[in-house]
Amino acid sequence: MPLSLPKVHRPQRDILPLLQKHLDNLTKPPGSLGRLEELARNFGLMRGSTQLVAQKKAIFTFAADHGVSRAGVSAYPREVTAQMVFNFLSGGAAINVLCRHYGIRNVVVDVGVDYEFPELPDLIKRKIARGTQNFNETAAMTQDEAIRSIEAGIDLAEDYDLVGTGEMGIGNTTSSAAILAVFAGVPIEEAAGRGTGIDDDRLRHKTQVLRDALSRHKLDPGNPLDVLAKIGGFEIGAIAGLILGAASRRIPVVVDGFISGAGAMIATALEPACRDYLFFSHLSRERAHRRMLEFFDARPILDLDMCLGEGTGAAIAIDVISAAIRIYNEMATFESASVSRS
Amino acid sequence: MPLSLPKVHRPQRDILPLLQKHLDNLTKPPGSLGRLEELARNFGLMRGSTQLVAQKKAIFTFAADHGVSRAGVSAYPREVTAQMVFNFLSGGAAINVLCRHYGIRNVVVDVGVDYEFPELPDLIKRKIARGTQNFNETAAMTQDEAIRSIEAGIDLAEDYDLVGTGEMGIGNTTSSAAILAVFAGVPIEEAAGRGTGIDDDRLRHKTQVLRDALSRHKLDPGNPLDVLAKIGGFEIGAIAGLILGAASRRIPVVVDGFISGAGAMIATALEPACRDYLFFSHLSRERAHRRMLEFFDARPILDLDMCLGEGTGAAIAIDVISAAIRIYNEMATFESASVSRS
Repeated sequence: MPLSLPKVHRPQRDILPLLQKHLDNLTKPPGSLGRLEELARNFGLMRGSTQLVAQKKAIFTFAADHGVSRAGVSAYPREVTAQMVFNFLSGGAAINVLCRHYGIRNVVVDVGVDYEFPELPDLIKRKIARGTQNFNETAAMTQDEAIRSIEAGIDLAEDYDLVGTGEMGIGNTTSSAAILAVFAGVPIEEAAGRGTGIDDDRLRHKTQVLRDALSRHKLDPGNPLDVLAKIGGFEIGAIAGLILGAASRRIPVVVDGFISGAGAMIATALEPACRDYLFFSHLSRERAHRRMLEFFDARPILDLDMCLGEGTGAAIAIDVISAAIRIYNEMATFESASVSRS
Repeated sequence: MPLSLPKVHRPQRDILPLLQKHLDNLTKPPGSLGRLEELARNFGLMRGSTQLVAQKKAIFTFAADHGVSRAGVSAYPREVTAQMVFNFLSGGAAINVLCRHYGIRNVVVDVGVDYEFPELPDLIKRKIARGTQNFNETAAMTQDEAIRSIEAGIDLAEDYDLVGTGEMGIGNTTSSAAILAVFAGVPIEEAAGRGTGIDDDRLRHKTQVLRDALSRHKLDPGNPLDVLAKIGGFEIGAIAGLILGAASRRIPVVVDGFISGAGAMIATALEPACRDYLFFSHLSRERAHRRMLEFFDARPILDLDMCLGEGTGAAIAIDVISAAIRIYNEMATFESASVSRS
């Protein structure tokens, strides 16, 4: 079955002067809240409304395994993906703590973990397969699997005002580096990074694995579905789907770090208008993330040297956006507070 | 009466390995939470404890007027200082919105507004005088007033786990630029900036006012009390006092932006050990703030193009620190969550 993409409409920019006028009436020098004002304005633009509401917020943490993890590209064993899913479900991971702190719902979605989970109340099961194939030997997935991974994410955002992306999957910085290389033309030596903290030897090996894979597969950035199938991951496809589905409903998406950015590359290659619904949360310490943000012409909200994934950068950024929206909604105006203008 | 400074003890660094060991046991690659880990570790170092608590948090917004505002250095009329105090007390300013959002108490302290406020339940009245003198003509304050402004801040932090600085005072970027020039040797053309958004003509005038003032007064960075008296402001003295008092009680202080940084320059010139209790919240858009942070060898937590003051940058940063402390306290360990290590 071919991939059926939801229609994404670009925001109508005629609302911008109304949003700006409201911001300039608030009791502060114009523009003095800097990016908080920009975030509120862009949120309104995305929503197509001067009434800004960000009550219902979720971060989707998609988990999946990668065949390439068998090629020795990670510092951690493959089993950690499933172990971390249990950690998410019991509330002990960083993303859980941050979501509690910020009042964000964390939704864990198994799209391809190499483990058969029992029925668990807080786990959404949309498993495509028990991990991808090793893209160093063959295509990571079939075209049908690639489509199903995207479809796994498309409807998830529908109940929310603002969503964030997140992921867990041992080996997934390798897949993301390959995607960056294909879409942004970044040399593989620059695209490959330390992921969870690999040493120099393993980084050399990871770079060689990537070089081999990119020369084995014929990859065309004009065919993003094929790129996803050949070198992608199920969680990366699902992130792309989440973005496509959210953008089609005018729901802003806060993109986490390097792997989520790879999902955003797939999404925007499939449907360029998605870009207009994205916030980029933070600059990851994964070294090639800077090149990825340049590809999107994006300035991240935060720079906290983080490189954990899960949605942790998105969580903090979602709360900065929430604070910006409260500023927009709750500050007094010069008139209401009887404050003199300049 | 001479200034009596509280004794500040430098933190004992032998607690650092204990804090680091705890962080490295949490279910994440070592260091992958980047600055969140650094913030938790430094908070523990400052508190001298591996038990991190940041329940009681306040931002002190010190308000005062400046004689130099009569020299036409600001985009806003002098009356705005008092008007904004009323705005703070009725909850309509940016700092109120952010403190509500983050669960931080906002404490407004009049240390020198040119307005006689009635008794108001939420206003702390420690007025030194109705504004400083114009330092372009004479000393901004007497030495006794300088001492009293510092004393006004010293005891305020005592009931809190973590405090932030903030201020309101038309004209106070001019005073702060002078302080930066004196302590960091920054040329006045670089130290002077746009404050609340002045145009090129007014910036040239402000720069000339500063040049005249610095040539009129003999200023010695080795005599910070005299620098405060000659070219400072009452709120800047009070911020210095808040920092001194907090540091003496091992209470971490989150420094807001440019004016708060000037207060921190006075505090650390009086007592260098204060530096060990400071977090620097954000890089202000006020252009010389970068030089000020370099003087402190500080990397700010945030860079959001803000330049409002009031404590708005400190508020956001306090919540990032609070999130880091929750990470430290609430994340599972590899052992408790049965997650494999690398």
